[in-house]
Amino acid sequence: MEQVLGYIEGEQDRYLREVADFIAIPSVSTNAENRPDMLNCANWLVDHMRRIGLQNAQMFPTAGHPVVYGEWLGAPGKPTILIYGHYDVQPPEPLDLWESPPFEATVRGENLYARGAADDKGQVFIHLKSLEAFLKNTGTLPVNVKVLVEGEEEIGSEHLAAFLKEQKDLLKADLVLISDSSMFARDVPSICYGLRGLSYMQIDLVGPNKDLHSGSFGGTVHNPIQALAEIIARLHDKNGKVTIPGFYKGVLPLTRTERTAYRKLPFSEKKYARELGVKALHGEKGFTTLERVWARPTLECNGIWGGFTGDGAKTVLPSKASAKISMRLVPNQKSDKIAKLFEKYVKKIAPRTVTVSVRNLHGGEAALTPIDSPGVKAAVAALAKGFGKQPLYQREGGSIPIVVQFKQILGLDTVLLGFGLPDENAHAPNEFINLKNFFGGIKTSAHFLNELPAYLPTKKS
Amino acid sequence: MEQVLGYIEGEQDRYLREVADFIAIPSVSTNAENRPDMLNCANWLVDHMRRIGLQNAQMFPTAGHPVVYGEWLGAPGKPTILIYGHYDVQPPEPLDLWESPPFEATVRGENLYARGAADDKGQVFIHLKSLEAFLKNTGTLPVNVKVLVEGEEEIGSEHLAAFLKEQKDLLKADLVLISDSSMFARDVPSICYGLRGLSYMQIDLVGPNKDLHSGSFGGTVHNPIQALAEIIARLHDKNGKVTIPGFYKGVLPLTRTERTAYRKLPFSEKKYARELGVKALHGEKGFTTLERVWARPTLECNGIWGGFTGDGAKTVLPSKASAKISMRLVPNQKSDKIAKLFEKYVKKIAPRTVTVSVRNLHGGEAALTPIDSPGVKAAVAALAKGFGKQPLYQREGGSIPIVVQFKQILGLDTVLLGFGLPDENAHAPNEFINLKNFFGGIKTSAHFLNELPAYLPTKKS
Repeated sequence: MEQVLGYIEGEQDRYLREVADFIAIPSVSTNAENRPDMLNCANWLVDHMRRIGLQNAQMFPTAGHPVVYGEWLGAPGKPTILIYGHYDVQPPEPLDLWESPPFEATVRGENLYARGAADDKGQVFIHLKSLEAFLKNTGTLPVNVKVLVEGEEEIGSEHLAAFLKEQKDLLKADLVLISDSSMFARDVPSICYGLRGLSYMQIDLVGPNKDLHSGSFGGTVHNPIQALAEIIARLHDKNGKVTIPGFYKGVLPLTRTERTAYRKLPFSEKKYARELGVKALHGEKGFTTLERVWARPTLECNGIWGGFTGDGAKTVLPSKASAKISMRLVPNQKSDKIAKLFEKYVKKIAPRTVTVSVRNLHGGEAALTPIDSPGVKAAVAALAKGFGKQPLYQREGGSIPIVVQFKQILGLDTVLLGFGLPDENAHAPNEFINLKNFFGGIKTSAHFLNELPAYLPTKKS
Repeated sequence: MEQVLGYIEGEQDRYLREVADFIAIPSVSTNAENRPDMLNCANWLVDHMRRIGLQNAQMFPTAGHPVVYGEWLGAPGKPTILIYGHYDVQPPEPLDLWESPPFEATVRGENLYARGAADDKGQVFIHLKSLEAFLKNTGTLPVNVKVLVEGEEEIGSEHLAAFLKEQKDLLKADLVLISDSSMFARDVPSICYGLRGLSYMQIDLVGPNKDLHSGSFGGTVHNPIQALAEIIARLHDKNGKVTIPGFYKGVLPLTRTERTAYRKLPFSEKKYARELGVKALHGEKGFTTLERVWARPTLECNGIWGGFTGDGAKTVLPSKASAKISMRLVPNQKSDKIAKLFEKYVKKIAPRTVTVSVRNLHGGEAALTPIDSPGVKAAVAALAKGFGKQPLYQREGGSIPIVVQFKQILGLDTVLLGFGLPDENAHAPNEFINLKNFFGGIKTSAHFLNELPAYLPTKKS
């Protein structure tokens, strides 16, 4: 292991040159004119996988951009890790806001700037270099490794689920490792072990059968905007709890360990409120802001519309009003079940003066890889060694559909080992990866592969 | 008077021919290409006023279409009535839905069909014919009469207020008479003696300083759509009363006479609800539907918007949400005062988690000419004689800005003597005036002029 780490230390300049080649290919998946670049980039990856010693490296065509795959399965009896990343990037526009050309990897200060530096070419490259370091120096890896790099993450991973379903055998593994996210803060190595699910609904209310003159009819019928407001106002109680009966049933409670862990994170509610421009934060009583956004189910209005919304004063009593309302879910809540409870409750509290319809627009499940699970334990040990600092625990309030797909299609838990930073400008001009995180990430990846067998019981296949 | 009424009875065929000439001029005020027609129509009116014996008949240019004026002031010591109407009409489109050409007055069944038949050429013509009947047969009128016919009612009477201000002396009178509205129902002659005022507001709420990802931030801040819904839900109590402190202060109560009068109108709440397509009506408890819409102040949401309003599921926690909310006012409420009370209350109940701003977009005062006022009494007596049936009393829930202008600029109360019908298709294809109402209207107009001196105390000028 010492040899491997020493090698990683000594090859930093080469790493920067190589990642610059990877970055130089403008693999913007959403642009039709970059289609040849997408293929170039996939070819570059297959070639690079072969050069570092991966086997069976190849491109799998999909109905969209190809998936690149490589493996090393020379450790029978050891666990198998499936590393996921993506080689496609966001468009670089607006170009005039970049301080250096987006596809020329440029070191300034302690950062490497380029489109894809953090999201996600740089982070894919981190793992390729740790694999290379083992294979070049020891001819072997501590675990079996499968690497899957897709080309459509930035456009919704449309064809990934089909690929996972078709290649279930090829992708058999014990754990998924994804590096496509951020640490909690600069110099705060952290491990993200949970994501929330989603249940996204639409309410449509109809009052009178046509728009009415608000003078000639005002005061005669229930205004659908008012009825909708009354329904929305009843979805939370005065303690900020969601009032839908059964909503919290079975919700996985925060453990004492988790609450203690979150308190260790450098987070100021005051600063957070100031940055968002609000005088006070708001939410379910009895929980801190981080607890609410990561580990508690919540309900938000995403949109509302009805009646006259232009300039000036049109005196209409509208026929219709609608709202989009979504709930973020935590483990043990099921998206479909929550959607049904929502619909039932809204229909129950809707006044009989209006006609209400409720639609389930979209949903997804929460994901959690417990703090004391082998994968997270190995990642924590690896981060501690890679960054010389005890990592902290975090979750993410949003959803990552890919994580749910790995769980649902392949039955695999995911460890999210992010080497980005919250201010990395992903999807914006001047995207960067911090060099400390880049090189620390390669060491952490090596440690992770090395630590994994100690934590993960080997499956008999 | 018998002679006058007999003359009116005998001239019906000529009335139909003449009104057809008036209608044939396509005086669509909103269309630039009808500008010459507007002038033709004004000229036709001036000419017609002269022919029936009015004096000082002339056209007053405005910044828009001209105002036509004529008078007969040969009854010193008698009251002076100012008759208002308009010679402009709505566009006839869609043309293919008309059963006879819009500018060819056509009798079918008991109706006369044409654009302007009811709104308002037919009703202006009604008064011209009663004046003519007096002048041709007696050489005199029972009262002094001023007739003002504008050409911009369908486009907002933009230049009427300036005209009223410039011609205060010319327009001095005791009462305004307007026939530009409808009877309560077919065969139900009625007099409209009140209109509601208006206070039209906009609320803008800002929560976080930018749109946020509803996963990464859901549960941390007060969602402005939710906060807006909570504010709106608090604007009415469970009895349907508006909760703004001071809102009902001084509100002119319904008299026993009025409530009894409304109950005599042929009105079915069930049928009304069925026609509007609602399972139940809704509003302030303790009042009938007609009482609520005519004589009670109400608050309606006219529009609401915020966040994502397109198809599908965008996971945004929006920065802003807005609503347009208007209040209909009754006598003794002042529009500006109500706007201030609204602003104060909304700011008071808005949570400190959001920033709220309230704007007063538009307002106008209520108008009421009491049931026992001379003008209404004279109109009731005239309707009873003109239609052979005791008329009923009604108000209108909307506002007629012209009525407020006559009050504010000239200090005059208005009597609304409408000869249209609720289903007359004003502003729509196949507009008509019922011939019974047309001829009964001419007689009613004659009776009104004849009755007025008995009710209206003569002013010394």
